[in-house]
Amino acid sequence: MRRKSFSKMQCPVARSLERVGEWWSILILRDAMHGLTRFDQFEESLGISPTMLTRRLSGLVKAGLLERQRYSERPPRYEYVLTERGRDFRSVIVAMQVWGNKYFAPEGASVLLVNAKTGAVADPVMVDRKSGAPLAGADFILTPGPAAGASTRRKLATSAWSTTHPGSARRSARKPRIGS
Amino acid sequence: MRRKSFSKMQCPVARSLERVGEWWSILILRDAMHGLTRFDQFEESLGISPTMLTRRLSGLVKAGLLERQRYSERPPRYEYVLTERGRDFRSVIVAMQVWGNKYFAPEGASVLLVNAKTGAVADPVMVDRKSGAPLAGADFILTPGPAAGASTRRKLATSAWSTTHPGSARRSARKPRIGS
Repeated sequence: MRRKSFSKMQCPVARSLERVGEWWSILILRDAMHGLTRFDQFEESLGISPTMLTRRLSGLVKAGLLERQRYSERPPRYEYVLTERGRDFRSVIVAMQVWGNKYFAPEGASVLLVNAKTGAVADPVMVDRKSGAPLAGADFILTPGPAAGASTRRKLATSAWSTTHPGSARRSARKPRIGS
Repeated sequence: MRRKSFSKMQCPVARSLERVGEWWSILILRDAMHGLTRFDQFEESLGISPTMLTRRLSGLVKAGLLERQRYSERPPRYEYVLTERGRDFRSVIVAMQVWGNKYFAPEGASVLLVNAKTGAVADPVMVDRKSGAPLAGADFILTPGPAAGASTRRKLATSAWSTTHPGSARRSARKPRIGS
């Protein structure tokens, strides 16, 4: 699939997408976090074509999310193991699980995160590490970081990220503009 | 792009991917969270072709993440506003920002989440809402939920999600299998 490269965009979301590549890659990472490491395991789990799987695994190795390790000398066999960078992607996967379970699992959750010792089901939420404050509310807003360029600054100047009532921020953008 | 439908997979990650569609959709959601609502605003921000943008916006409306609202009668003009489901996708976006800032921003962060009142930079982390325990450690493991089918149960039986030393879980999967 031909598509525009996102790597020149300054946004960390765009750059992450550039590295992870596309949906198959996310599902491969999900399976790797479930403990799968071998080509045939991924193939069976995903029902993906070998050509596509080869391409996606190579992409993830190149992006530094998986490491190719030989686990058998004769015949030579390789497995794909998560790097630290790959393991750190877990928070994105967990966030997707929470969202997916909430909106697209009418029959109930098929996957849950539980405390290994107590068996209590976890209710994942994104908070500020220091204060413990949930990041979903109006208390937290997106601002340009130290490395932000002009376009990032311009975009965030009208940020409604924080508004639970997005009307106020939208109103200023409603002025009819030439060419709109 | 022709691709396999993920909607039949039980996994909440796969179902989420099915709804969000592809990268452009995530970047559109990101921009919507930044306060953009109008076609020309998304077009300018993303450098996306009008045809592709139209398709992606329709997909997000159909999936219930954006709502199309008329904001001008003459001429009729529409804007795209996040629904509750769309706003809830924020935790996925934030998780991607954290990951992207950590690994793919050698020049420093271009976007930061800050406390609107104090200006303190947030350090987002995924925790259990009740106990406050971080979910990244070995304390939490993935288990089949009440609605899990056979394949989900089989896959999670070998889950190494929780292991910080994934070797142990992988070893059992290393046995050479017929056809591997």
